[in-house]
Amino acid sequence: MHLFYQPDSISQLTEDDSRHAVKTLRLGAGDSIAVTNGRGTRFDAQITKADARQCAFRILDEQYTPARPFSVRICVAPTKNIDRIEWFVEKAVELGIERISFFFGQHSERRVLKLERLEKIAIAAMKQSLQSWMPQLDEALPLEKLLPTITEGQRFIAHLPADAPPEHLFSKATINGSYTVLIGPEGDFAPAELSAAQQAGFAPVTLGSNRLRTETAALAACQILNLKNTEL
Amino acid sequence: MHLFYQPDSISQLTEDDSRHAVKTLRLGAGDSIAVTNGRGTRFDAQITKADARQCAFRILDEQYTPARPFSVRICVAPTKNIDRIEWFVEKAVELGIERISFFFGQHSERRVLKLERLEKIAIAAMKQSLQSWMPQLDEALPLEKLLPTITEGQRFIAHLPADAPPEHLFSKATINGSYTVLIGPEGDFAPAELSAAQQAGFAPVTLGSNRLRTETAALAACQILNLKNTEL
Repeated sequence: MHLFYQPDSISQLTEDDSRHAVKTLRLGAGDSIAVTNGRGTRFDAQITKADARQCAFRILDEQYTPARPFSVRICVAPTKNIDRIEWFVEKAVELGIERISFFFGQHSERRVLKLERLEKIAIAAMKQSLQSWMPQLDEALPLEKLLPTITEGQRFIAHLPADAPPEHLFSKATINGSYTVLIGPEGDFAPAELSAAQQAGFAPVTLGSNRLRTETAALAACQILNLKNTEL
Repeated sequence: MHLFYQPDSISQLTEDDSRHAVKTLRLGAGDSIAVTNGRGTRFDAQITKADARQCAFRILDEQYTPARPFSVRICVAPTKNIDRIEWFVEKAVELGIERISFFFGQHSERRVLKLERLEKIAIAAMKQSLQSWMPQLDEALPLEKLLPTITEGQRFIAHLPADAPPEHLFSKATINGSYTVLIGPEGDFAPAELSAAQQAGFAPVTLGSNRLRTETAALAACQILNLKNTEL
């Protein structure tokens, strides 16, 4: 069954998806499709007009999947090699994530981030893993502008200090929380950024003893929080 | 500090590494380097002869890191898009893994796998994450030839059956084990393969409720077993 993401319409596909459905997949009137609105509802539908510019469908049934009882937001500094962040977005969506925010730190090597391609990757991953919730992706901000906007929930900053390692994210987090985890750039956080984050309520945590790349650490945080909220 | 991997010599770098050290990094006699043998020992060394074909070094000090008290072996079917398996190897090495084996299943789309490039990726990841243990990578085998070679330790097969989901890997595994986890190809295991694995002592487990890509599932298994063995 082909799954389409249509956040705004319950009667026709976007132009891109219409072309994909009609030209690439060669779907015709009467064919079945599935459509998600990215807000938990998945519709079983039938194509009524196979127009490559404006493919119309009719909803036959719908199924609602509630949001997870916890939410994970990762704030990550874009990597110099953009493939690594693209890879993180794909994997984080597969595992389930509610929100991804990007920031530029003092040691960030990359200063520009285009959200459009990342959104496409997130949509593809949501569809591939048969999910009905589309995560929110935020435009990149300087860290000092991002921090004051995050004032609620359980806030963590992943950091491997030279001296005593902080508590592990798995034991520090409590279940069913609304979590935000800050993951540093490849050059790590600057000391002033670390103190600013701690003043803003972000508790230092470790994700394990190995030195991980930015995108690996970001994904590890997602999975640790998922596991924390899994009935085992 | 530049880290080199020299499994066989404690006095000179390989030709590739010699060229890299002398031509690319422009290291000269007297410069400090670090060398790991991939079996737990890391040497502090000093270059004695900066020859781009045969760079010699002298060991000043050594430090041994014991192996982890548990071991993780993932057996995974190569993905059609080789990038995905390359990515998995990099990330699994970063997180710490002892052995990666590849197999071809009935539903595998890829039937050829070159180990050389994957070995290079594993070495780079080991160095990048400052580890002293080089994981073993095995040539790909048909699943029916691989299964009879694995007769010890805790054996699991990750599978999402249509009916009742099996126990989660995190709760099924016991700590300090020698674990082997089978991860299916993109087209999943064939029913006959599932029964063969179960007869060979592989217990079905789930890695969570989401449908994951092959390489995502393989990495999730690594992290679940790491976390199982972390003092929290």
